[in-house]
Amino acid sequence: MATTRQWRLESRPVGEPTHENFDLVTIDRPEPGPGEVLVRTLYQSVDPYMRGRMRDAESYAEPWDVGDPMKAGVVGEVVESRYDGLEAGDVVTGELLWAEHAVAHGDDLRQVNPDHGPVSTALGVLGMPGVTAYFGLLDVAEPTPGDTVVVSAAAGAVGSVVGQLARLNGARVVGTAGSDEKIAWLTDDLGFDAAINYKDTDDLAGAVAEACPDGIDVYFDNVGGPITDAVWPLLNVRSRVAVCGQISIYNATEVPTGPRKLGKLIESRARVEGFLVRDYEGRWGEALDRLSTFVREGDLHYRENVVEGFENAPDAFMGLFEGENVGKQLVEVAEYED
Amino acid sequence: MATTRQWRLESRPVGEPTHENFDLVTIDRPEPGPGEVLVRTLYQSVDPYMRGRMRDAESYAEPWDVGDPMKAGVVGEVVESRYDGLEAGDVVTGELLWAEHAVAHGDDLRQVNPDHGPVSTALGVLGMPGVTAYFGLLDVAEPTPGDTVVVSAAAGAVGSVVGQLARLNGARVVGTAGSDEKIAWLTDDLGFDAAINYKDTDDLAGAVAEACPDGIDVYFDNVGGPITDAVWPLLNVRSRVAVCGQISIYNATEVPTGPRKLGKLIESRARVEGFLVRDYEGRWGEALDRLSTFVREGDLHYRENVVEGFENAPDAFMGLFEGENVGKQLVEVAEYED
Repeated sequence: MATTRQWRLESRPVGEPTHENFDLVTIDRPEPGPGEVLVRTLYQSVDPYMRGRMRDAESYAEPWDVGDPMKAGVVGEVVESRYDGLEAGDVVTGELLWAEHAVAHGDDLRQVNPDHGPVSTALGVLGMPGVTAYFGLLDVAEPTPGDTVVVSAAAGAVGSVVGQLARLNGARVVGTAGSDEKIAWLTDDLGFDAAINYKDTDDLAGAVAEACPDGIDVYFDNVGGPITDAVWPLLNVRSRVAVCGQISIYNATEVPTGPRKLGKLIESRARVEGFLVRDYEGRWGEALDRLSTFVREGDLHYRENVVEGFENAPDAFMGLFEGENVGKQLVEVAEYED
Repeated sequence: MATTRQWRLESRPVGEPTHENFDLVTIDRPEPGPGEVLVRTLYQSVDPYMRGRMRDAESYAEPWDVGDPMKAGVVGEVVESRYDGLEAGDVVTGELLWAEHAVAHGDDLRQVNPDHGPVSTALGVLGMPGVTAYFGLLDVAEPTPGDTVVVSAAAGAVGSVVGQLARLNGARVVGTAGSDEKIAWLTDDLGFDAAINYKDTDDLAGAVAEACPDGIDVYFDNVGGPITDAVWPLLNVRSRVAVCGQISIYNATEVPTGPRKLGKLIESRARVEGFLVRDYEGRWGEALDRLSTFVREGDLHYRENVVEGFENAPDAFMGLFEGENVGKQLVEVAEYED
């Protein structure tokens, strides 16, 4: 019988995840039931939010059970279909598993048109990160032309789309990132008005203030912690903060503390709002239409950081917390041959 | 020549204000110019926000200059008028001075009808605190029937109105306050569903959780600090936090720190918004109409804590930070005889 491999949660991390938390298991390849399809993974996504699901605590996502295969956004190829409307060879995307093969109901998959661009983009600029950027910026933060928009983790899968959409919307855009390579990408290729390497300054608050002489109207926060502390005093009257992620504290083992922030909101009448992309499920198509048009017309650039080989998925995930990825972090599990 | 007295800012407080920061000065009684009126103060308001104006730092209110008379909400009687539409004997309210007499332009005053109730209410339930509660709750926090609403400093001038309005709106209402007398007033007279004496518990988070078995949909924050920390983990999906004041940290001499709070907003998709009542100037009449109807019909109760004697104004102000006042804190400067 054919086999396949899965990564399972071996144990819950305390602080930073390590190899000991992951277990690579070989199992019989599953067979699709009625309405289901068997998918061969081409690309698997690793994302910061997954750290929350490794935790045994209430979060916005159900925690994963120890011993179970972990879930992931996947782009894959249909191997066998018992679902009307999908057939072997179709490319699909959906939430599957950290696995070389997985079975899913056809209703839970979205077909990917390989003619629209590299299929991997269905996990990045034309997938969950792009859609997150789209609604978080346009629906939650609501930038207007002339606004100063600051985005943290600006060279990441979400942040890089946020900054470009803000620019297309007429904003002045400032990003923070953690390497000179990223800074160069933001300013030279993506058209950011300014970018700050937060690892390369002793005075982050001063650097942000210098880059934002008219204060900050929108802060799109992927990171939290000291970068948010530096942004906060500059929030303008009626500014908006969209809270998308807090990767700086996902691995914290004690309650993270920092300067109290609510007082500033009175003076500035600012609005701070958290959001989850899953609340926009019904409008996913709207975002993809717009994003794919921008990509096609050359207005929206992206980069992917591809780690080859399924066995390297945990390393790709752990690298997120080291800030190793420029753009979307992917694991290439199998080669796509169209 | 007739004289009058003013309290001036003698020096800026470091930490808690002390008597040394205030200077009582006798001056010639000012005379109204064209369009102006001379007002004899009946009641002067002292409010937490004044602490910000004593500071030499950018705030939502202009800082007061050292050596200048301080500003305050006042209810007073017109002594002499050079303004069409006001005459001697009229009762007016507006932002005047910590003074026994002051001059103001007639356009900056609002006439008070003594038949509608005690004139002092124009500084409390039918004045800035009441209007603050009205718009902060209904416009910013937007409670819906069945919501659990938590209000801090619930026995204060703003908080006591917030809680009652929330109840009239069909919410379950929980307040925090700092004495058993206040707790009794909230639950026995104002109809709060629960009230917590935060000075009388070792486990504030546990006490709030117990009082809010279905979590918290609206938090109206007058206080900040540990009470906000206790409220935060209970914020429900799509909950709203209206940030009105942060009295717990107004006297801080170092940057106050506490648990980082933004991560919780992602999971709960909560909205946190600061506001200032002055942004609702054009809608003041709407609020007063509603509030005075509630008062007249017995649906909205209030208390005033009146300190007699202009010379005691600094003590009345400093008492705010000790939590001494139940309801609106006023200074009676002269007796009103209608």
